Amino acid sequence: MPDQQPIAAGAFSMPVTVRFGDCDPAGIVFYPRYFEMFNNLVEEWCAAGLGSSFRNLVIERGLGLPAVSIQTDFIATSTLGDKLTAQLSVLKIGSSSLTLAVLLMGEGGDVRVRATMVVVLIDIKKASAVRIPDPMRERIAPFCAPQEQTNEVRN
Amino acid sequence: MPDQQPIAAGAFSMPVTVRFGDCDPAGIVFYPRYFEMFNNLVEEWCAAGLGSSFRNLVIERGLGLPAVSIQTDFIATSTLGDKLTAQLSVLKIGSSSLTLAVLLMGEGGDVRVRATMVVVLIDIKKASAVRIPDPMRERIAPFCAPQEQTNEVRN
Amino acid sequence: MPDQQPIAAGAFSMPVTVRFGDCDPAGIVFYPRYFEMFNNLVEEWCAAGLGSSFRNLVIERGLGLPAVSIQTDFIATSTLGDKLTAQLSVLKIGSSSLTLAVLLMGEGGDVRVRATMVVVLIDIKKASAVRIPDPMRERIAPFCAPQEQTNEVRN
Amino acid sequence: MPDQQPIAAGAFSMPVTVRFGDCDPAGIVFYPRYFEMFNNLVEEWCAAGLGSSFRNLVIERGLGLPAVSIQTDFIATSTLGDKLTAQLSVLKIGSSSLTLAVLLMGEGGDVRVRATMVVVLIDIKKASAVRIPDPMRERIAPFCAPQEQTNEVRN
Repeated sequence: MPDQQPIAAGAFSMPVTVRFGDCDPAGIVFYPRYFEMFNNLVEEWCAAGLGSSFRNLVIERGLGLPAVSIQTDFIATSTLGDKLTAQLSVLKIGSSSLTLAVLLMGEGGDVRVRATMVVVLIDIKKASAVRIPDPMRERIAPFCAPQEQTNEVRN
Repeated sequence: MPDQQPIAAGAFSMPVTVRFGDCDPAGIVFYPRYFEMFNNLVEEWCAAGLGSSFRNLVIERGLGLPAVSIQTDFIATSTLGDKLTAQLSVLKIGSSSLTLAVLLMGEGGDVRVRATMVVVLIDIKKASAVRIPDPMRERIAPFCAPQEQTNEVRN
Repeated sequence: MPDQQPIAAGAFSMPVTVRFGDCDPAGIVFYPRYFEMFNNLVEEWCAAGLGSSFRNLVIERGLGLPAVSIQTDFIATSTLGDKLTAQLSVLKIGSSSLTLAVLLMGEGGDVRVRATMVVVLIDIKKASAVRIPDPMRERIAPFCAPQEQTNEVRN
Repeated sequence: MPDQQPIAAGAFSMPVTVRFGDCDPAGIVFYPRYFEMFNNLVEEWCAAGLGSSFRNLVIERGLGLPAVSIQTDFIATSTLGDKLTAQLSVLKIGSSSLTLAVLLMGEGGDVRVRATMVVVLIDIKKASAVRIPDPMRERIAPFCAPQEQTNEVRN
């Protein structure tokens, strides 16, 4: 069962309910909605995990965390009412970038969507990358995946 | 303080966080997103309040609950990270329609958006209205607003 | 045929195709998507009709045109692939507000959605209403609906 | 100028305007919206390029074309009002899958977003892959990218 996945130690997770408005005429999640779920996950992780809400980050500090690349595999479909778990762990902390592993799993831990995304901390006004400050690095560290997983990363 | 509103007895309510993806370049909620919040509220009310999930209603029973009309007043803006409360109460139960009062409130109970919507129970395949079954009526009854509020309804 | 409606003289109109992502598991347009269509219509009207793009309005001039209220009647459903016409006319020009009549029609001119919305010109930073400048009023005037329609307006 | 890209011979393209509702509080396109643009592109390609609308495909024939994987690089940001060109070409035709190259370019042909996506033709009810029928293959062929580009594909 390679796609059965327990909540990883150190990972951040939150529940996601598949809503009517997430689903298409085929009755399954319209895939662009998954990326909204990913963004909500990153947002919630910043607020609850790193102690810095997007309001604080974006509005007050003028920083952004846009995606630079995303590799996504849609492994199994999800349907209306599914209670999913979204899970995030950090694969790599760069100077200004973070490589994140994101999973969406069903109630039995079966993987529905698996993504690797690179986000970059930027100064919105200058539209340029910003070094991740040390206090933020310290708060990110506990969410780093163990080394063996890091080796799998291709980005 | 006419726009300060306590959680009404009998009303159904749920928390709604204003996400990054809900907000526009002016930094406030893009108003079409409020209607997604309304639909999530109706969906959650069906599942948690009436004991009939949208999956059961739509997929298994072939029923729908589309909106026939909505009157919405956007009273105050909401911004990134706001923790809102969405509240629903029933103003009128018709043969196949429901008139719902919907509120979105800030943390202090201040009203941000106020809507009156009429939804109709339909048979999706026949595309025709269906009488609300008695067991469903009984479950809806506790969410009916007291009579004095009903008098205000214009629809 | 009260819901059969020709393109009104002076009205602004644009084509709208119902996309896969606009439709729900019941196969019809998920109603919050209609409000995105309305906003696109207002945006296109500003750019093509009034000669002032939202980029110019919002980013360069710091102005916004948020909705204050919307009364919407969903008269008939629309499905995947429908070629709709969105039509806008001005019912009233106030000091800082505009009352707009919006229609979404099918290929035969049959009305699918009818809305009356009030939008207000605001200064985003000050979060306060701004008087509609005279040059903008002059450009809006040709889109005003004839007087008899104006009498119907309740807002 | 590796990211300057002419409209490829054989590629399918359509214009995309960046709308207010596509943009986030940082004033740039909220990245999940790009995936809606991709889906609209695939949908338009099916209708205009392959002669088979999604309505025909999904509603009438019970077929779907869900994404199995997407690798996306967000190369440069796009802002409110940008007039983009979305371009699609076919990298590989499998038994039931298609590997598509998708580009979003600015007015000068500068690449904003570049994606490689694999979609699969499925029978929605059976939830299983379906061989792409020969008539459809013939219509897809003209959109295939020249061989040297195909070699770059990693999926």
